[in-house]
Amino acid sequence: MPIRFREDYPEVMAFLGFEVRKMLFSRKSPFQKIDVLETDTFGRVLLIDNLVMFTEKDEFVYHEMIAHVPLFVHPDPQNILIIGGGDGGTIRECLKHPEVQKIDLVEIDQLVTQACLKYTPYLSEKILNERVNCYFEDAVEFVKKSNYRYQIIIIDSTDPINVGEGLFTVEFYQNCNKLLTPDGILVAQSESPIWFPKLIKGIAKKLNSVFPKVHFYQANIPTYPSGFWSFAFASKKYHPVTDFRKKRYRELNLKLKYYNDRLHSATFNLPTFFDELINNA
Amino acid sequence: MPIRFREDYPEVMAFLGFEVRKMLFSRKSPFQKIDVLETDTFGRVLLIDNLVMFTEKDEFVYHEMIAHVPLFVHPDPQNILIIGGGDGGTIRECLKHPEVQKIDLVEIDQLVTQACLKYTPYLSEKILNERVNCYFEDAVEFVKKSNYRYQIIIIDSTDPINVGEGLFTVEFYQNCNKLLTPDGILVAQSESPIWFPKLIKGIAKKLNSVFPKVHFYQANIPTYPSGFWSFAFASKKYHPVTDFRKKRYRELNLKLKYYNDRLHSATFNLPTFFDELINNA
Repeated sequence: MPIRFREDYPEVMAFLGFEVRKMLFSRKSPFQKIDVLETDTFGRVLLIDNLVMFTEKDEFVYHEMIAHVPLFVHPDPQNILIIGGGDGGTIRECLKHPEVQKIDLVEIDQLVTQACLKYTPYLSEKILNERVNCYFEDAVEFVKKSNYRYQIIIIDSTDPINVGEGLFTVEFYQNCNKLLTPDGILVAQSESPIWFPKLIKGIAKKLNSVFPKVHFYQANIPTYPSGFWSFAFASKKYHPVTDFRKKRYRELNLKLKYYNDRLHSATFNLPTFFDELINNA
Repeated sequence: MPIRFREDYPEVMAFLGFEVRKMLFSRKSPFQKIDVLETDTFGRVLLIDNLVMFTEKDEFVYHEMIAHVPLFVHPDPQNILIIGGGDGGTIRECLKHPEVQKIDLVEIDQLVTQACLKYTPYLSEKILNERVNCYFEDAVEFVKKSNYRYQIIIIDSTDPINVGEGLFTVEFYQNCNKLLTPDGILVAQSESPIWFPKLIKGIAKKLNSVFPKVHFYQANIPTYPSGFWSFAFASKKYHPVTDFRKKRYRELNLKLKYYNDRLHSATFNLPTFFDELINNA
């Protein structure tokens, strides 16, 4: 009898699961429950409160798409703030850009980072890079008090429940806006448009009240609910498609598995129901 | 204790499932087992041999994308052959084009059509339209013997196991090619690039051996394995993007939920790993 992990999606009364070879790590931090599973077909899997945060098999989709889209729009992304993202995957992708001089990571739960450094170093080891500063504290307070300025802010958060809840408010977006340079860009993971339409409508409405330019883009992440995932791109100046830096993309010549220049522009062309969701927000 | 349906994905040792309110229909035909389930969140669901064929919640993605992409490329799609597709969803979408004069449906299993006409008429009732002829027979034999000519052939098949197997061979594609007009287009559902890469590589290789132009496109179908689904577009003459008939799209002004003109072109821009899969086929 195999061991099975099952993630429930109560909003749609559905579930996704897979067979587990063994449990590598399981602990409760002051904030949440953290597990690392070993599987034969998805590699190692990080769970927070029984929700899949990443699997080795498809994490490249999420991390490439949350990082390279804004970093290939901004002409000179020197300073980056990552909210959440304690697994280090987004850091790994950002550091592929030589323009990046400093990354501040604000992760509430140090145990996430410790577990990932131990069990998924291929994903996480760039956390130790000299260009990275880790702040293990509440991002809601960090953005309220900080006086730093960033070209890019990436909200690489969990779902808007428990510790993630404060990262989906107008006040939080306003404080992020304050930390952006006048040509800054904010990108946030924004959940599934097909299974969580109300969530994405709320995110669109709040971002539109703070930023002059808000666009959504999509990616296929099989181990997230519905597999149909979205990201919000909010900017004070740049358009995600017309300001795409094709020359820098070509010169940098990264070896990536999902993101590419044609996809960069294509991914902002949304299915009609998704367009209608955000346009009526 | 709720009743749960679970579809297993043995290739990746994973599964997807949902809660079922009741079983509406369950019978074995000479070819396969057919079930119709009632659910609270996905509406009615058709299963064949315990695999999800469609759910009311997301069938629009599959049916709009398999039909409108080729029908908005061909300048005058008068005669259409649909292989499989006994649920009628692809017929429903094709008949939205006034150019269509005749649709031949070749479905091996009449019980599929009977069950759908009874339990999901919103999807299936266009099967009874006067422009549609149903042939309840083996499509492998049909395409071998037929002398008809079609502008469009749509392979709306199950997976390449059991009755679906013969619909994924070079010989089958050659016989389809023979039935196409010199400017004809063939579109086929081509499985998940991320969970079934070998399958899609095989489809690409076989189609490339028969057709001068082969392109793949993608769609997000949450209740299919991985949610990341693909379609093959094979043509003797037309390019799916440069030959897109934007004027006809605008004039027809269809009210669709997924497909639109911007998405038509965008959907052919694939993630890098998918491009590499089919380019090395």
